[in-house]
Amino acid sequence: MAAIPNPPETMRAAVLFGPGDIRVTEKPVPSPGPDEVLVRVAMCGTCGTDLKIFDGHFPQTPPFGQFTPGHEWTGTVAAVGSSVDEFAPGDRVCIEAHSGCGRCDNCLTGRYTACLNYANPAKGHRATGMTVDGGFAEYVLADPDYVAHIPKDLAATEAAPLICAGITTYKGIKQTEAKPGQWITISGCGGLGHLGIQYAKAMGLLVCAVDVDDAKLAHAKRLGADLTINAKHEDPGSAVKKATNGGTHGVLITAPSLIAFKQGIGMIRKRGTCVLVGLPPGEFPVPLFDVVANCITVRGSFVGNREDMAESLDFAVKGKVRADIELQPLSAINYIFKRLEHGDVAARVVLDFSTAELSATRSTGAKELVHAQYGDNQ
Amino acid sequence: MAAIPNPPETMRAAVLFGPGDIRVTEKPVPSPGPDEVLVRVAMCGTCGTDLKIFDGHFPQTPPFGQFTPGHEWTGTVAAVGSSVDEFAPGDRVCIEAHSGCGRCDNCLTGRYTACLNYANPAKGHRATGMTVDGGFAEYVLADPDYVAHIPKDLAATEAAPLICAGITTYKGIKQTEAKPGQWITISGCGGLGHLGIQYAKAMGLLVCAVDVDDAKLAHAKRLGADLTINAKHEDPGSAVKKATNGGTHGVLITAPSLIAFKQGIGMIRKRGTCVLVGLPPGEFPVPLFDVVANCITVRGSFVGNREDMAESLDFAVKGKVRADIELQPLSAINYIFKRLEHGDVAARVVLDFSTAELSATRSTGAKELVHAQYGDNQ
Amino acid sequence: MAAIPNPPETMRAAVLFGPGDIRVTEKPVPSPGPDEVLVRVAMCGTCGTDLKIFDGHFPQTPPFGQFTPGHEWTGTVAAVGSSVDEFAPGDRVCIEAHSGCGRCDNCLTGRYTACLNYANPAKGHRATGMTVDGGFAEYVLADPDYVAHIPKDLAATEAAPLICAGITTYKGIKQTEAKPGQWITISGCGGLGHLGIQYAKAMGLLVCAVDVDDAKLAHAKRLGADLTINAKHEDPGSAVKKATNGGTHGVLITAPSLIAFKQGIGMIRKRGTCVLVGLPPGEFPVPLFDVVANCITVRGSFVGNREDMAESLDFAVKGKVRADIELQPLSAINYIFKRLEHGDVAARVVLDFSTAELSATRSTGAKELVHAQYGDNQ
Amino acid sequence: MAAIPNPPETMRAAVLFGPGDIRVTEKPVPSPGPDEVLVRVAMCGTCGTDLKIFDGHFPQTPPFGQFTPGHEWTGTVAAVGSSVDEFAPGDRVCIEAHSGCGRCDNCLTGRYTACLNYANPAKGHRATGMTVDGGFAEYVLADPDYVAHIPKDLAATEAAPLICAGITTYKGIKQTEAKPGQWITISGCGGLGHLGIQYAKAMGLLVCAVDVDDAKLAHAKRLGADLTINAKHEDPGSAVKKATNGGTHGVLITAPSLIAFKQGIGMIRKRGTCVLVGLPPGEFPVPLFDVVANCITVRGSFVGNREDMAESLDFAVKGKVRADIELQPLSAINYIFKRLEHGDVAARVVLDFSTAELSATRSTGAKELVHAQYGDNQ
Repeated sequence: MAAIPNPPETMRAAVLFGPGDIRVTEKPVPSPGPDEVLVRVAMCGTCGTDLKIFDGHFPQTPPFGQFTPGHEWTGTVAAVGSSVDEFAPGDRVCIEAHSGCGRCDNCLTGRYTACLNYANPAKGHRATGMTVDGGFAEYVLADPDYVAHIPKDLAATEAAPLICAGITTYKGIKQTEAKPGQWITISGCGGLGHLGIQYAKAMGLLVCAVDVDDAKLAHAKRLGADLTINAKHEDPGSAVKKATNGGTHGVLITAPSLIAFKQGIGMIRKRGTCVLVGLPPGEFPVPLFDVVANCITVRGSFVGNREDMAESLDFAVKGKVRADIELQPLSAINYIFKRLEHGDVAARVVLDFSTAELSATRSTGAKELVHAQYGDNQ
Repeated sequence: MAAIPNPPETMRAAVLFGPGDIRVTEKPVPSPGPDEVLVRVAMCGTCGTDLKIFDGHFPQTPPFGQFTPGHEWTGTVAAVGSSVDEFAPGDRVCIEAHSGCGRCDNCLTGRYTACLNYANPAKGHRATGMTVDGGFAEYVLADPDYVAHIPKDLAATEAAPLICAGITTYKGIKQTEAKPGQWITISGCGGLGHLGIQYAKAMGLLVCAVDVDDAKLAHAKRLGADLTINAKHEDPGSAVKKATNGGTHGVLITAPSLIAFKQGIGMIRKRGTCVLVGLPPGEFPVPLFDVVANCITVRGSFVGNREDMAESLDFAVKGKVRADIELQPLSAINYIFKRLEHGDVAARVVLDFSTAELSATRSTGAKELVHAQYGDNQ
Repeated sequence: MAAIPNPPETMRAAVLFGPGDIRVTEKPVPSPGPDEVLVRVAMCGTCGTDLKIFDGHFPQTPPFGQFTPGHEWTGTVAAVGSSVDEFAPGDRVCIEAHSGCGRCDNCLTGRYTACLNYANPAKGHRATGMTVDGGFAEYVLADPDYVAHIPKDLAATEAAPLICAGITTYKGIKQTEAKPGQWITISGCGGLGHLGIQYAKAMGLLVCAVDVDDAKLAHAKRLGADLTINAKHEDPGSAVKKATNGGTHGVLITAPSLIAFKQGIGMIRKRGTCVLVGLPPGEFPVPLFDVVANCITVRGSFVGNREDMAESLDFAVKGKVRADIELQPLSAINYIFKRLEHGDVAARVVLDFSTAELSATRSTGAKELVHAQYGDNQ
Repeated sequence: MAAIPNPPETMRAAVLFGPGDIRVTEKPVPSPGPDEVLVRVAMCGTCGTDLKIFDGHFPQTPPFGQFTPGHEWTGTVAAVGSSVDEFAPGDRVCIEAHSGCGRCDNCLTGRYTACLNYANPAKGHRATGMTVDGGFAEYVLADPDYVAHIPKDLAATEAAPLICAGITTYKGIKQTEAKPGQWITISGCGGLGHLGIQYAKAMGLLVCAVDVDDAKLAHAKRLGADLTINAKHEDPGSAVKKATNGGTHGVLITAPSLIAFKQGIGMIRKRGTCVLVGLPPGEFPVPLFDVVANCITVRGSFVGNREDMAESLDFAVKGKVRADIELQPLSAINYIFKRLEHGDVAARVVLDFSTAELSATRSTGAKELVHAQYGDNQ
């Protein structure tokens, strides 16, 4: 292993100066406390939650002018605090963004994304890129209890989108309780959905993909969907029920739209489960009679824990799941937010902090880039 | 065992002549087909679903002028068809009203209340007192596959309200997945709720009872509720969350009101489950962000199957659960519906077809009547 | 659909005249009672349990000189009793051999292979080919409650071995509770094991196949096993634990050998489950300290119910699972038992009662025979 | 809260000088590292595992002449290391003896008693009183990740025996998967069993208590057992099966005897689960045919995790469970081991380090001592 260079004194980082105002600036590299690790960021994914933070709609962010978002980062440990013994400089790692207090009844069993003290810093809760500085920067601090090793056969680029989008869909599918051989509907075939289709197939499920975009549905087909339905051309509820002889056992709604939620109920088989993973504001009208008489379960699922992370990365190691990725440099951060605002993002956009190595890798055509594309940035 | 007399040629039965028009008439006693049993009705409970049928709002009822409702009946087998071998005349039995086709994937595992061919007579589905003649009559026919023996230490009077109201709440509590030692909220402390409190206590749960009526809450307390909250005097969501340090693991909504449903969401602990068992029309607005971020499950539960029936009756045999009952004769049927329409029913009203024996029993002060009261009827 | 000819008066059937003495004779075709169906047998698999019956070691068989074994049969309904409405002549069907009393607590939830009144005819229990006449005959009677339709895209030949060997391994795998992405060991790669490997792969599991025969292990590899271990050449416990970093989450023991059972415990991961499906006599020494300190579960699983049957056949319909079959005529019955006695059976031997159609099919090279081979019979 | 005095320089502690040779000596009070807490011990239970350690049969203990056993301790935090923020001096705490590496797949989900790196100190695993110094001393060090707060309404005396014996039986009962209303057998009614009976009743189960000692069975009856069976006077398998109409759904074997294990199998209902929690050496012969044909599960369960601890203490807070305790001073340590060797211990023996406060408490007749008795020591 190459020697790990000492971190420099300053680094480039994107800082939020106000709602909609993010700028790349020079910032001091932080030092790890006794119980922290400092990570040299390799890749950092961008997601819909970042857009909310960018717009100033996220409740617990640090003050403007200081805060750096970014919660889907992977990288290499650069330094560790004095009481840290499970990581050493040079370890390839990724973050579990939604940590927990470690003491409430949900944390006691590892379900810390439902921590009863969520976003309560007095109880020791902190969420990278949301309530403390995150990975839109060359270096980031983290609590080692919520850092995981990246499996050795998985590239940091591949891992970045999986640790939020991947884990969210994988856990959501588990929460439908659909068994191998049964049907699941994946509603929405974009950033989350294209991963959901792959996870569902790897888990032995029959997949019905629903979207309003024929190109996404064609991609869904290539990824293994057994059935595709364009909700613009036919009522997805009746179409799914007809094709699957009564509806699918599980339904995963990845599209953060109230219409998609409502349609989801219409596609569930009696005694089936509809899982929601997006976080749109608003209320979702549930038809009572149908839910009761059909014994339907509607369930919210929020990201996933370290068990889900290990399992979801393992499917990627085994080659069963691969995210569509568009690489961009940190300097493109405003361009990316503009596109997120307009819904103009076909694949997960990942900030690439390893330009030098990247160029080298590209010229050798290494595995890392087989399916990742370096996107235009204006 | 006393000899079972041959059934007479005609019987008294309540017949629905039109919406809101039910009359006690004389009708032929039906003969069992080869695969049917004929039961001499002892008791028949009345419930909210009967009110919908009475009002003409239930979709699959037989034609007016012929149909006899009643789906919570207990009685004694009077005659059996030629292929029936699991019952004999004289057996004390009760009905599982919601049968199934026996062949769909839900029926294959005994979850026939979610039969995929529910209310489809072409597939062999029939529901006593809903799609075929029921127990508001001295005799009723039934499919032996959906008839159960009444445990020998349980009076027919006790059993009658349990086979619909009891099983529904018991199954609903199971569906919350709350474990012994955890909290459950029983919202609504009337006909269903007062049973729910008793079942929950017998299952080792801590019970928070919510209602808007202080008398019902006082009764809840007597039945063992650990905590009572009057939703008219304080916001039940915050009151429950404060008293239980974060909300209850399970919530069972027995009140068929949209407000109760909405409040239910506010009382659930993170990762908890809210179960709905009533069948009010309309839509129930679910706050999306809360459901997802708090990993909440909302689940419909519809009556229960023969396993649930055996278990729920067994708690009664063990003396853990007893329904509040008001006895009435068949001739009071219009008086009962009037009271159901006005919500003027404190305890389950049960039609008593055994007046003669009843009088005898009463004079001996037998166990049967210790807590049942013969109600006024005008 | 072609007209169903009336059944003849007599049929060919194998009759057990004493231990080890089975002969093909002419017997009357039985008539269905009001609640029975008569089936024209198409195919009937042979299995290890038949060998026990043949040897006279099975406790509840009917008297010698009358009894016809055979519990893995498929066929076509030839006639139905007067109260049967879920089947009609011409329906393609298969049997669920292990029926239940329908009334005990296990039967109430569809787990009738664990019926509390198993093999108690007074409680209505009967098992085709074990306690009543079975399918080593041109016609067989059955209780319609334990007959299933064969899915329309599945050949009767394909279905025959699945309804005993297939369902047993599929259910056994479910009982390990191993999840998609986790490891399972299939110990024994013969008649049961070669199906287990295919089911496990279809269910998203990683498969470690263990046997003592290199040819079977090569076949396991072709069927998708991720890892193969020859227990003659290395200690399977340490080999499996090393290759899977601590043992497999599930272990399915298909080999009916005490050594295989003992080795099974050595391959389980901490908190894993070892499922046994064979029925060898004798006792299996379980090391107490290991089972407790490693939180290991050892579980018996017996065939499967109608839900498992529907699911296991469905995997075959989807082309995920296919049994290796050797076809033989009824006249080869003694030859087959001789080979079963000597363990000289590579694939499932299935009695073929449709010789005429078979010949026709063969000449057209139809799908039915793509992988089934008509075996030598001396 | 009274000020917490600084810890003294030395303390009294029992030290193991060789097999069977334990002596109370004076030892330095250790200082907490940055990630440790120092606890002033209040009470420390003694159990069968201590006897194994005392005899020198426990594999990973530190060198003789230095090591202090004791893994069931409760106390008050005396000092905390620099990175500890979840505890402060004065907090009342108890230990979870069986910690985990925190990184293996079992630890990731909180099942650390089945840690894949158990007893591997290189992976950060340490077990108080087993692989590092424990609580047979006035002060003990601990990893705050495996320390829990004692609920405020629970005395330290009450908590001590629950954190090993209580949690073990409670978790074992959960692992039987018996549901409220079903039957469980508690085999062995001593130190573990008398707690098991109370937990089972609090969880809504029907309890069959089995022992060979009539006095213990009489105590079981007082604690709520619904049925008691003396295995010396009748075959417990047939007696249990007869009384419960087929066997109990769950069986918990607390007696560390091979005979008890063997009898356990005979008492299980079809599809039931027998859980083992003791750690006797040797092998346990399981009858294969019965396990498979009856779909029986045999499962090892090892102590419990922090979730189980919180739940099991909570039942004590609610007054549902109370351990029989005999208090002894540290100086009685040899006397206690002598009695443990001879099986001469009716109730849990707990070392009491708070003699001064105890005397005070005694004279006031405070709650702490209502049921604990200060045992003879000589």
